Amino acid sequence: KAYRVVALPGEGIGPEVVDASVKILQHLAKLEGFSLIIDYALIGQPAFNEFGNFFPTQTSQVCEGADGILFGAVTKGGILELRQHFDFFINIRPVRPFEILLDKSSLQPHKIQGVDILFVRELISGIYFGPSGRTEDDNGAYGYHTMKYYDWQIRRIAKVALSKAKERRGFLTVAHKENALPQIPWSHLVQEEAEQFPDVTVEPMLVDNLAMQLVREPKRFDVILAGNLFGDILSDIGGALVGSIGLLPSASLNEHGFGLYEAIHGTAPDIAGKGIANPLGTIGAVILMLQQWGEIQAATSLLQAIERVLTQGYRTADLALQGQEILANTETLTELIIEQLSEQ
Amino acid sequence: KAYRVVALPGEGIGPEVVDASVKILQHLAKLEGFSLIIDYALIGQPAFNEFGNFFPTQTSQVCEGADGILFGAVTKGGILELRQHFDFFINIRPVRPFEILLDKSSLQPHKIQGVDILFVRELISGIYFGPSGRTEDDNGAYGYHTMKYYDWQIRRIAKVALSKAKERRGFLTVAHKENALPQIPWSHLVQEEAEQFPDVTVEPMLVDNLAMQLVREPKRFDVILAGNLFGDILSDIGGALVGSIGLLPSASLNEHGFGLYEAIHGTAPDIAGKGIANPLGTIGAVILMLQQWGEIQAATSLLQAIERVLTQGYRTADLALQGQEILANTETLTELIIEQLSEQ
Ligand SMILES: CC(C)[C@H](C(=O)O)[C@@H](O)C(=O)O
Ligand SMILES: CC(C)[C@H](C(=O)O)[C@@H](O)C(=O)O
Repeated sequence: KAYRVVALPGEGIGPEVVDASVKILQHLAKLEGFSLIIDYALIGQPAFNEFGNFFPTQTSQVCEGADGILFGAVTKGGILELRQHFDFFINIRPVRPFEILLDKSSLQPHKIQGVDILFVRELISGIYFGPSGRTEDDNGAYGYHTMKYYDWQIRRIAKVALSKAKERRGFLTVAHKENALPQIPWSHLVQEEAEQFPDVTVEPMLVDNLAMQLVREPKRFDVILAGNLFGDILSDIGGALVGSIGLLPSASLNEHGFGLYEAIHGTAPDIAGKGIANPLGTIGAVILMLQQWGEIQAATSLLQAIERVLTQGYRTADLALQGQEILANTETLTELIIEQLSEQ
Repeated sequence: KAYRVVALPGEGIGPEVVDASVKILQHLAKLEGFSLIIDYALIGQPAFNEFGNFFPTQTSQVCEGADGILFGAVTKGGILELRQHFDFFINIRPVRPFEILLDKSSLQPHKIQGVDILFVRELISGIYFGPSGRTEDDNGAYGYHTMKYYDWQIRRIAKVALSKAKERRGFLTVAHKENALPQIPWSHLVQEEAEQFPDVTVEPMLVDNLAMQLVREPKRFDVILAGNLFGDILSDIGGALVGSIGLLPSASLNEHGFGLYEAIHGTAPDIAGKGIANPLGTIGAVILMLQQWGEIQAATSLLQAIERVLTQGYRTADLALQGQEILANTETLTELIIEQLSEQ
């Protein structure tokens, strides 16, 4: 088999974590016997500097027909356009702690052990993409953004979340804020779609309560469905649960299964260029890409290699080190994972 | 001195926790020698049943000219209208754990000990109150809500948050989402207002990151300023930090200092009518009301009485009981607090 991946390093720590992930992916290709082409393109500030556009046509053309996009990070420009251009409406964010890192969570270990949450976030609509502007009236100058959802947009992401719940523990929590935002009836629409999924229990939950329950009792959740803005906020809380936002991956897919793979963290300007970023979020996104391709063995080997390196005690600086743990920079951690892959 | 308080019990556990708070307030009035009139009025479902309106004119008239409104809870109808009617744009939500309840937090005790956060939430604008509706176009049926902020609305709540920060540790974090919602420039406007507050450091923070940091390192925060929707979500996380949402109070004020005092929890339909609700959120709101009146001694006595009852081991059912702790229902806890007040 042959895969073509487009790497979009972007800004901040983006190039460092994409670099680490590409190295690992190339190594896996050799080991597992699939062929791999990596194309690079610009996004965000570097794209703007070169083409005067955060997501230039050149970049979208390179992505066209690829088997996956491996994305680093950008401050703001480019990512929203990229998601919308390819209709990546499905954003998948698994939150599962590494057993060996339970003590990195700010939660008590027994609250975290066994947590296994899958966020399904609608990614190309809602308030990020609705009518917006700045203007003024008799009351003065104001700005506005519109949270707008077509019913079919909610229904199509609901179907994805319901299928995921069906494959998992059959429990779907739906984030909504219908006591203040009743015109966007998430609960009702999801419950209608759920009639086709008799094995799945649907629980609507107010987003404020959901944020609280995520911290109070994360184990009670299986799949959490949320719109674009609420999904953004809720899934970041997952970072505090597992011990570092640097650990969490994400996949953004369209209905054809074409996807963009990235960590959920941002550009981390404070540590950019120092070579100390945690690459495990982006490497975790590589695992999601391999799974999406059906390369299950490669995905499993990679996960096991990461777990062995963590078990040996290696940690990047974002994970407050204790006791016998060994500080590793991005490159060292990457080399160690590659070594483990080779030994399997 | 003489105060007139309007009690609006509302729905669910609202009447139970308001009842507890009124008893305590009446007792305090006797002890501290101020006179007190309590008027009752309807809001929410009971108001609708009686007057066909969730916030009827009858109720707003009773509130007019009072010294404070003591509010229980409603499912949805009435509270938003009430807040807007009296221009309660300032919502104050202190988050400080009781030392003796540190083990109730899902966070590790050392992460919680010493946490002292003040949320300042804009309460009568933003997406809750912007243009909204349901309609359809060529793409199908859709619903929308508009997040709209006049610059002056942001500036006036910024001034409140800046003054609070100045009286406290001088550190103000501003929630925003400008990488996706750039038309509402919270950071910029707050920084402009901050020029009048040279002692206060302003830190803008993306709301997704803020939700994560609140769980990861709550001690780093002093005052957190947020718009209506973000403030709702972020402050609920405070409930998981202190061990139960049932513990947190809130005050909503207009520019004249007239205010509405309530717990931040909702109607809790699952336990309503059982007499087991935790009244400490609403009783905490009474403390905020006493402080607002300048009745500092009464406020301090009440806080100390609560702390002593907790130190004796009494807990309502929302606080998972352990060891020597004694389960108390709403009424018992209230009686115990009154006893402690009398012994002071
Ligand atoms: C960069 C930003 C616009 C983005 C978002 O809010 O979607 C990021 O926070 C994310 O979660 O991928
Ligand atoms: C009842 C609801 C509309 C309300 C809000 O979102 O403001 C509540 O959650 C709160 O925080 O007081």
